[in-house]
Amino acid sequence: MSQDQTTQVKPSQFALAWELFRWTPVAIAVGLMAGAASALLLWSLNVATAIREAHRWMIWLLAPVGLCVGLLYKHFGKDVEAGNNLIIDEVHDPKRTIKLRMTPFILIGTFLTHLFGGSAGREGTAIQTGASLADQLARPLGLNAAGRRVLLMAGISAGFASVFGTPLAGAIFGLEVLAVGAVSYDAIAPCFLAAFVGDLTTHHLLQLVHMGHTIYKVDEVPALAASNLLMAMAAGAVFGLMAMFFARTTHAISAFAKKHITRPELRPFLGGAIVSCAVFALGTTRYIGLGVPVIQESFLHQVHPWDFMAKSLFTSLTLGTGFKGGEVTPLFYIGATLGNALSHVLPLPVSLLAGMGFVAVFAGAANTPIASALMAVELFGADAGAFAAIACVGAYLFSGRAGIYHAQRAGVGKQLPEALAAKAEE
Amino acid sequence: MSQDQTTQVKPSQFALAWELFRWTPVAIAVGLMAGAASALLLWSLNVATAIREAHRWMIWLLAPVGLCVGLLYKHFGKDVEAGNNLIIDEVHDPKRTIKLRMTPFILIGTFLTHLFGGSAGREGTAIQTGASLADQLARPLGLNAAGRRVLLMAGISAGFASVFGTPLAGAIFGLEVLAVGAVSYDAIAPCFLAAFVGDLTTHHLLQLVHMGHTIYKVDEVPALAASNLLMAMAAGAVFGLMAMFFARTTHAISAFAKKHITRPELRPFLGGAIVSCAVFALGTTRYIGLGVPVIQESFLHQVHPWDFMAKSLFTSLTLGTGFKGGEVTPLFYIGATLGNALSHVLPLPVSLLAGMGFVAVFAGAANTPIASALMAVELFGADAGAFAAIACVGAYLFSGRAGIYHAQRAGVGKQLPEALAAKAEE
Repeated sequence: MSQDQTTQVKPSQFALAWELFRWTPVAIAVGLMAGAASALLLWSLNVATAIREAHRWMIWLLAPVGLCVGLLYKHFGKDVEAGNNLIIDEVHDPKRTIKLRMTPFILIGTFLTHLFGGSAGREGTAIQTGASLADQLARPLGLNAAGRRVLLMAGISAGFASVFGTPLAGAIFGLEVLAVGAVSYDAIAPCFLAAFVGDLTTHHLLQLVHMGHTIYKVDEVPALAASNLLMAMAAGAVFGLMAMFFARTTHAISAFAKKHITRPELRPFLGGAIVSCAVFALGTTRYIGLGVPVIQESFLHQVHPWDFMAKSLFTSLTLGTGFKGGEVTPLFYIGATLGNALSHVLPLPVSLLAGMGFVAVFAGAANTPIASALMAVELFGADAGAFAAIACVGAYLFSGRAGIYHAQRAGVGKQLPEALAAKAEE
Repeated sequence: MSQDQTTQVKPSQFALAWELFRWTPVAIAVGLMAGAASALLLWSLNVATAIREAHRWMIWLLAPVGLCVGLLYKHFGKDVEAGNNLIIDEVHDPKRTIKLRMTPFILIGTFLTHLFGGSAGREGTAIQTGASLADQLARPLGLNAAGRRVLLMAGISAGFASVFGTPLAGAIFGLEVLAVGAVSYDAIAPCFLAAFVGDLTTHHLLQLVHMGHTIYKVDEVPALAASNLLMAMAAGAVFGLMAMFFARTTHAISAFAKKHITRPELRPFLGGAIVSCAVFALGTTRYIGLGVPVIQESFLHQVHPWDFMAKSLFTSLTLGTGFKGGEVTPLFYIGATLGNALSHVLPLPVSLLAGMGFVAVFAGAANTPIASALMAVELFGADAGAFAAIACVGAYLFSGRAGIYHAQRAGVGKQLPEALAAKAEE
């Protein structure tokens, strides 16, 4: 799959059709597995959240549960602990099949995080289950490294698409997340197919247990005038800075814990203890778990203007000390509540600002502006999606180099050409 | 703007904000100019179409008009004749400012094509006016090559966005059209801003003359089941083959004319003569001009199943012999009518198939699947957009290497990994 091959091989349309025909069942299988895992994840998190909210004393157990998860990964999960970064590394430089173990470990780890009141998300989990399940097909199908790369990308796409119910965003996410500032299309067809099949699978399975994806509604979208355009870009810059703050805080907590706490299982123990105490000190479960109710609130009316900061700190503490789970739903929360807070200073509707922040902080933290813009269009429609897309571009630019996935390659990086600056110096 | 610089420079957020602040008025200026030019173009084509349909005898004059346009470009327009390809080349390898002359020449050339009954589009024109106007800012602003590159990309984005009323698709088109199978993001903010400002400008100016963009409506979208997904992919492959057919026919006619007709002004003379005769032999103006009424029809009910082929041949003849104008509206026509024809064999709603073809043949011919998918979402909504996106990916894969813009670079090319095939050979 080198560039040289590409220029040499002139694929005949028949050969291409044959290849596509052969990849189709593989992509469908990837989608089915990832979609089933996502449905299981979403259902289990629903159960975890309900149990926790009914028995809040359980949150006191977060520290010992963190210890257990730490011990579990220390003794049996060392080779799957790197999670999303391991998967991104394998896509860039495929070496060996990801252990199937990654799937139950991350599912159980995420379940426990949510059951006992950590603040975390689910996309990391969905990506890991999607990709590790997909990778199991590599051996039976006799795939080489190039084939494994496509399997993993399709798994990422299917996992993301199915867990959020946004197939277009998921398909592009699998192509876009690998590098900062660049997309390449060689796995585009398997990623699209797997993403759509994954989404359908989750959708059907959730229906069986009378569940569905949460609907967020942007109920008012002003006409897109020039002033709004600049406001959306400025809001995007704020969202990007917030994404940078979140990523840096999480990395800093993680680095600090690794430096000062030698035994890895004690890191989530301590993190869990701090989170538990904070929950009971503040007397609210508003900042733990997925936080879906607060996200919904932030689309309806003004919420506390400090919600975004509290959620950011709770999540950085939870994930930075080694609990399992994703970052993206907390990023949605942080973005939606930060957008909501911006309604105090920007003359745009609350629900629109919440929707813009929802996708834009994620766009900045994951360095995926196109997938995020597509997600906005899929969730909120094309009108609100236009505002959100501008905010995503602003957030992407201002979030700095280090996003939440440090295995991302550099691509073209992010900056504006310094041509104008060059003139000033002349 | 080399890769090396990127990895060395770690942009501080303040420097970035300053750069963005400086680029913002430039991007807005690009959008204003491109949007104004697009409004002028759309208005003039409206006039041209109305006059021609009221005085059909004018179509007999297509041959001498072709001669005049040929002479005009031969004597005064040699350095702007390469049109879109010249612009793409300058983006990749900026050498010297595109002559301002490109703008009036392409506007007049396109107007004459439509007034006298050639079959052509308008996006080529909008891209050329957008980019050539944008490029005029390079000297007064003292931009270097990297800055000019961004100006041109923003001009392409703004031209495309404004002429079709699809800002998201336009923004991504400017990033995506440059290479096959790759996108890089370094100009993403100016492209987005210019695209939105361009769209707004055209929108406001058109309102002054009581015009607006045509609305196409997909009125029925079935639930996305697995079978529909595979049908959409298969339809996409057909759309891609059609795109390849169109691009190859146009190139072949052009190559044939260049080989056998030494004097360039005689090529459109001959092409015009053939088109005129064909119009009067068939007794219909259905296949000339932009063809917007037929596109609209194809969303409502079944049209002639040969419409797509006739439009393809009329357009290849018109553009291949050297008339001025774009390819994309004819591609929309070809796609919508081909999708319409597929409703005889595929159990999907006529309007959905028309919408899928509308964007997918274009996606295949221009090698821009993401911009095309975004266009579908902007024009038809997210549900129909999902079907259309799958079709765009299929079309992109199957349209072969040579699209309508031969200056496009190779990027990663298009193929599926040959990993599965490798196994079969073992």
